[in-house]
Amino acid sequence: MSRKIHIFDTTLRDGEQSPGFSMSLGQKLRVARVLSEMKVDIIEAGFPAASPGDFEAVRAVSSEIQGPVIAGLCRTIPRDIERTAQALESAEKSRIHTFIATSPIHRREKLKMSRDEVIRNAINGVQLAAGFCNDVEFSAEDGIRTEREYLADVLQAVIEAGATTVNIPDTVGYSTPSEMYDLFQWLKKTVPGIDNVHISTHCHDDLGLAVANSLAAVEGGATQIECALNGIGERAGNCSLEEVVMALRTRADHYGVEVGVDTRLLTSASHLVAAVTGNFVPRNKAIVGENAFAHEAGIHQHGMLASRETYEIMKPQDVGMQDSQLILGKHSGRHAVVDRAKDMGYELENDEIEAIMERFKDLADVKKRVFDSDLEAIITGSQTGGIGPWSLNWLSVVSCVNGETEPTVSMTLAHEDGSTSTHTGEGDGPVEAMVHALEQVTGTRIEVLSLAMRSISLGEDAQGEASLRATVDEVEYSGHGLSTDIVAACAEALLEIINRATRAAETSTQEVSGV
Amino acid sequence: MSRKIHIFDTTLRDGEQSPGFSMSLGQKLRVARVLSEMKVDIIEAGFPAASPGDFEAVRAVSSEIQGPVIAGLCRTIPRDIERTAQALESAEKSRIHTFIATSPIHRREKLKMSRDEVIRNAINGVQLAAGFCNDVEFSAEDGIRTEREYLADVLQAVIEAGATTVNIPDTVGYSTPSEMYDLFQWLKKTVPGIDNVHISTHCHDDLGLAVANSLAAVEGGATQIECALNGIGERAGNCSLEEVVMALRTRADHYGVEVGVDTRLLTSASHLVAAVTGNFVPRNKAIVGENAFAHEAGIHQHGMLASRETYEIMKPQDVGMQDSQLILGKHSGRHAVVDRAKDMGYELENDEIEAIMERFKDLADVKKRVFDSDLEAIITGSQTGGIGPWSLNWLSVVSCVNGETEPTVSMTLAHEDGSTSTHTGEGDGPVEAMVHALEQVTGTRIEVLSLAMRSISLGEDAQGEASLRATVDEVEYSGHGLSTDIVAACAEALLEIINRATRAAETSTQEVSGV
Repeated sequence: MSRKIHIFDTTLRDGEQSPGFSMSLGQKLRVARVLSEMKVDIIEAGFPAASPGDFEAVRAVSSEIQGPVIAGLCRTIPRDIERTAQALESAEKSRIHTFIATSPIHRREKLKMSRDEVIRNAINGVQLAAGFCNDVEFSAEDGIRTEREYLADVLQAVIEAGATTVNIPDTVGYSTPSEMYDLFQWLKKTVPGIDNVHISTHCHDDLGLAVANSLAAVEGGATQIECALNGIGERAGNCSLEEVVMALRTRADHYGVEVGVDTRLLTSASHLVAAVTGNFVPRNKAIVGENAFAHEAGIHQHGMLASRETYEIMKPQDVGMQDSQLILGKHSGRHAVVDRAKDMGYELENDEIEAIMERFKDLADVKKRVFDSDLEAIITGSQTGGIGPWSLNWLSVVSCVNGETEPTVSMTLAHEDGSTSTHTGEGDGPVEAMVHALEQVTGTRIEVLSLAMRSISLGEDAQGEASLRATVDEVEYSGHGLSTDIVAACAEALLEIINRATRAAETSTQEVSGV
Repeated sequence: MSRKIHIFDTTLRDGEQSPGFSMSLGQKLRVARVLSEMKVDIIEAGFPAASPGDFEAVRAVSSEIQGPVIAGLCRTIPRDIERTAQALESAEKSRIHTFIATSPIHRREKLKMSRDEVIRNAINGVQLAAGFCNDVEFSAEDGIRTEREYLADVLQAVIEAGATTVNIPDTVGYSTPSEMYDLFQWLKKTVPGIDNVHISTHCHDDLGLAVANSLAAVEGGATQIECALNGIGERAGNCSLEEVVMALRTRADHYGVEVGVDTRLLTSASHLVAAVTGNFVPRNKAIVGENAFAHEAGIHQHGMLASRETYEIMKPQDVGMQDSQLILGKHSGRHAVVDRAKDMGYELENDEIEAIMERFKDLADVKKRVFDSDLEAIITGSQTGGIGPWSLNWLSVVSCVNGETEPTVSMTLAHEDGSTSTHTGEGDGPVEAMVHALEQVTGTRIEVLSLAMRSISLGEDAQGEASLRATVDEVEYSGHGLSTDIVAACAEALLEIINRATRAAETSTQEVSGV
């Protein structure tokens, strides 16, 4: 039948390396599980040589995830490639993805290499990688701004050296759809041997064109799209996985290609990435935003009632958006909760069901109605992996506007060694006051970088989801909290940060990462 | 020189009509002022026949805003057109924008009209509009899914009837760039008289292609782009103004057209729309997101240090993003604040400077450092226009986790008639407790629909910005609060909602709105 397009997800590499989107090992594994359930073809799990944390993440994903090919990114230098091969050792199917910049400005300003030196490095890198792994991808970084004839030479050389996929990234998000189409067509006609390998596109969204450029590359002959959930990635991010997949599917008549992704998991995968990174998706985001299938204006509503097709080109069910809202109550048992979670796209692991049930029961006690979105927040929240030595025994916060006193916090923390510790703090607001109290309990220096909150589901008793980023003794962590009380949600997020900092083994510092 | 592309902004019409993006009259005026300073060519200010609120908004924008053409949307029925002409009466330059659906599914399911009936309605509408106004735009709703030959007939008929702009919207966000190019090329070759009018594109982002489709239409001959700040609009929204403008400008070599927009105001305009609608822009949003010009990964940083051009195709200054962060302190005077605001793209009105200075002084008292983003939040916050009878005299909130008591609020409100009123409330969190207290003070029924918060600038003493939506006696309002205390920020947002509900004259209910 029609040509199959490989979906190469880089949420865990290009997405995770961008400011404000870092994830812990546990979070990365959770995202990898959803990607695998969704049947993406390749998961790029990290850049093993960039940091010990990245190495561990690629190794853990390689060990656990079956189904998709697991890729690791590396420069063309031997140490990077060896390290990547090592991280991928236990993968069922693995890919070494090696890159070097080819554009004149990158050769001159960054690499300080001649054209020949770049080609030599590319060939050596691919040959070395091919010794470890029979699936080797080569990326010509800033390929879009590379001289055409030279780019063709580079690609020919790496194909001869053993690359099985060649990627031509629009690293700076500069291209237009017509240019992409033209370039891919030309490469397909020009580069000897290119018909025997996969041709890949990797687009950045600096001008809002990443999805369109990826689709134009497919029209021009590309067989692989590199993309990320919620379009996260360096600067304005990468091509959004959910948008490009739904465009290929909705307009199959136009593009005439196939994708193997189970689109019914798009919404839950998007929500998971939003929750673990604390970057909520805007209402007007295509495919997965709250408004994507909402119709406000009277004329539209009238049309919708007459026939859904008048305004709807996709069905909410196709992307796993639930029509029904109301789900469970206080008397719902373990079985009902696990089943409902499964319908929503979350396969719960046995070891996490206990914690989720506990939170569910607590919530059902205080909330009149428990919605899908509440359950989802509990699941994604409890999967953020904030296990550490400290837990909150008791918290009291007094806030006052125009009164005599500053906001004051008193909190009692229990340590896993059995001790408890009570401290008070003051500040310009409850968050600052809590930070001051926590600094005393833990003897660390905490600086809050950002705070975001939003309500989950409806009603004044809705849960609030808090996402905090802070440095603890100058190392950055993120934390996540969920409660019907906004102050308690912030406390929980701060506690997760403290716990993560204490379990400092999980820390990863990024040194190098590209494409 | 090269062809000029008209930028037609529909933030206040298609943007404002989508769920969760409604604006008060004062907010609409503020957005219109920024659009006018930015020199967009046309501002679509609303749909006057849809509701009294929309009528008032179009009338107010028409009276105040000089420079851009002010457009009002209407169906082709006489009552709609007359009402629109009336709303636009005092505009310096006005445009009546009339539409009817032309696609088979809309004709059959929504309009229940034959092809001929649709054409007759279109002609009558344009002729009537042309009697009121010499600038008439006609939109063929769902034009993209209309039979080509019939679409050409419709456009020819309305051009003969006096339309000066013809718009072919992708109402459901279904098209692809190559189809758009092809259709616009074909129309330009086929429709008699089309060279004498403006050809417009209006794209929705359901598949993430709105910007690319708009650009493809320009390549195919379009001379007007309909778009909205932050890409807001029905469902996944419209083409993002900031992205399409920066794409045309950054790739002027490719598109070869001119736009008149002052791009240095893009960032502040985007922030204003985010603040007044309470829909924050994600970090990875192109052009205006926090990360749009941020480079995390080591390789990228290395490249950036070597030469900005290696990874940067635009300069942050081009879009009004400030490099410097630190601005003002406790001793900064009125002049310094007004100047700084001006540098950031905010021309402060005389009557608002007092309120802004008061908030600035309050903030400088509690905060060690005041950033651009703090000042911006004060400006956009104080411009949200929440003037009403109630003010907060005193607030005390006690939150407790694992303690004996529920969160409890005690608040004293002053009414402009001189009376004060103190009440307490309990709830599952401080927001619910405040709602209960406010219900008692005001004798209304309040239901919170959504809450979003985020931190502004840096540090644990950073300000928190709260955005709340709630119904008061079943009518929806939004409110906005700003404080270093997250609870106080929520209180302020709730108070704005109560005040708006009390000044119910500002209420607008939406009935009909399309394209």
